Amino acid sequence: MPEPVAAPTDDDGRPLPPAVQAVEVQRCRAQGGPPADDTDAIAAEVPVALSFNGLSHAVMMATPADLPAMALGFALSEGLIASAAQCYEIEVTAGTLGCQVELRIAQQAFAGLKEHRRAMEGRTGCGLCGVESLAALDLAPAPLPPSPPVEVAAVLRAMAQLAAHQPINAQTGGCHAAGWALPDGTLQFAMEDVGRHNALDKLIGRLAQARQLGTPGFVVMSSRASYELVRKCARVGIATLATVSAPSSLAVRIASEAGITLYGFCRGERAVRYAGAPALSGGRGPA
Amino acid sequence: MPEPVAAPTDDDGRPLPPAVQAVEVQRCRAQGGPPADDTDAIAAEVPVALSFNGLSHAVMMATPADLPAMALGFALSEGLIASAAQCYEIEVTAGTLGCQVELRIAQQAFAGLKEHRRAMEGRTGCGLCGVESLAALDLAPAPLPPSPPVEVAAVLRAMAQLAAHQPINAQTGGCHAAGWALPDGTLQFAMEDVGRHNALDKLIGRLAQARQLGTPGFVVMSSRASYELVRKCARVGIATLATVSAPSSLAVRIASEAGITLYGFCRGERAVRYAGAPALSGGRGPA
Repeated sequence: MPEPVAAPTDDDGRPLPPAVQAVEVQRCRAQGGPPADDTDAIAAEVPVALSFNGLSHAVMMATPADLPAMALGFALSEGLIASAAQCYEIEVTAGTLGCQVELRIAQQAFAGLKEHRRAMEGRTGCGLCGVESLAALDLAPAPLPPSPPVEVAAVLRAMAQLAAHQPINAQTGGCHAAGWALPDGTLQFAMEDVGRHNALDKLIGRLAQARQLGTPGFVVMSSRASYELVRKCARVGIATLATVSAPSSLAVRIASEAGITLYGFCRGERAVRYAGAPALSGGRGPA
Repeated sequence: MPEPVAAPTDDDGRPLPPAVQAVEVQRCRAQGGPPADDTDAIAAEVPVALSFNGLSHAVMMATPADLPAMALGFALSEGLIASAAQCYEIEVTAGTLGCQVELRIAQQAFAGLKEHRRAMEGRTGCGLCGVESLAALDLAPAPLPPSPPVEVAAVLRAMAQLAAHQPINAQTGGCHAAGWALPDGTLQFAMEDVGRHNALDKLIGRLAQARQLGTPGFVVMSSRASYELVRKCARVGIATLATVSAPSSLAVRIASEAGITLYGFCRGERAVRYAGAPALSGGRGPA
């Protein structure tokens, strides 16, 4: 039996929805008689509303574990705060419609947030983070300073450890994970969510909580690499991103422009480097 | 060699970005010498801006194929128009920042869209389709009328045909697909996109273009089942959704409430039914 995932509580001690839920299912076969009743474990997806200094900002669908880390990571990776020090307090409340995460942030950051919202007033939009015109897109994150390359062998070593850090996925098969690895490929921890962007935000938040943002290391993810993942890494100074599956064209372009090393199809002993400075090869061949 | 995917043009004859792009990569191994330079095919992800009657509405990251179908499907599945007849014209323009899709819709639908935007004025939000508070979420789509169950064997038959309808994914490994199947499991066509929501919108748009929305059949998808996919199906009256991977808890709940039959883990001869009326079993056992 897999380890049960502990049900967290909100800041008033009320239980948050569990990250894994049991449902009644019928297991069916193309041939061979009627379906069999059974129970199955599925990953929870609940609405999570973020507000800053009392101002509602966004609702995301997320797995209700590590919500303070997700909120802090979102604020950092979306540029709403410049550093974790600008976030004074995070309070999570469980409600009937979903979860509420209230962040108290520095007045300077909040002033910037309000200014940004005023500039968008009347243009509510729908879709990509409320962006509704091409000109408003942020497709050119500031380039990162050069950093030491990560060896391919270390990337693959870290990826091989990811499954062991995915307790929700082990039960449900329905959760993405973002893991943080040291330069030698030791996987320190991983965060899970039904959404890959949320998983990365949770990881960024946890790194910030541990004061590890900006320290040497890299990110491994169980998903494909989309534009948003690369942009979030660029925003917080993560210079290497490795994913199990394929990157999109915009992910490759943004990674190249931002100086991010991007690996895709990291499987077993192989990986494909789509962007970034040549890393040292794991095997150096004959001396 | 895979069939090249034809590069479409915009309505002025300018080429749209190709759906598949070639990039220079290095193929790396954990052991065994330096990386090998190569080229790889990746799925294109470009910003696509939608506007209605001249009013900017949303930007999505999408694969630039079948954009008119995506725009029409989005308008239908998000409830911006009540039927395809309310969309008079769709014009695609290729630009330097991305693609622009301009829809001309009935005055009645446009009035509703403007009213909805006025109600949200000043609450720009970021995240789930511009929704920024839990109360504004649409978590209760109207239930569908009962429809004849789809046999499990037909679901698995359709799923087995999906790969053959994914030319972009065959080249890139980085594209989702949504396919439309007749009740007997014959897969009619499939639409591809780096985003699963876009793939489903493209399928809904193509069904509407072919006047097939509301006719008997079901949807198969290469992805997991999230809340948004089920909600989109509910909005346009698609009563059965089958996915290769796991559903989320909210997908199961919304499917149950909307009367949608939801299959997950449709692989080979097996599938798991998470919601919906009991379907006829493929094998009936001894008479």
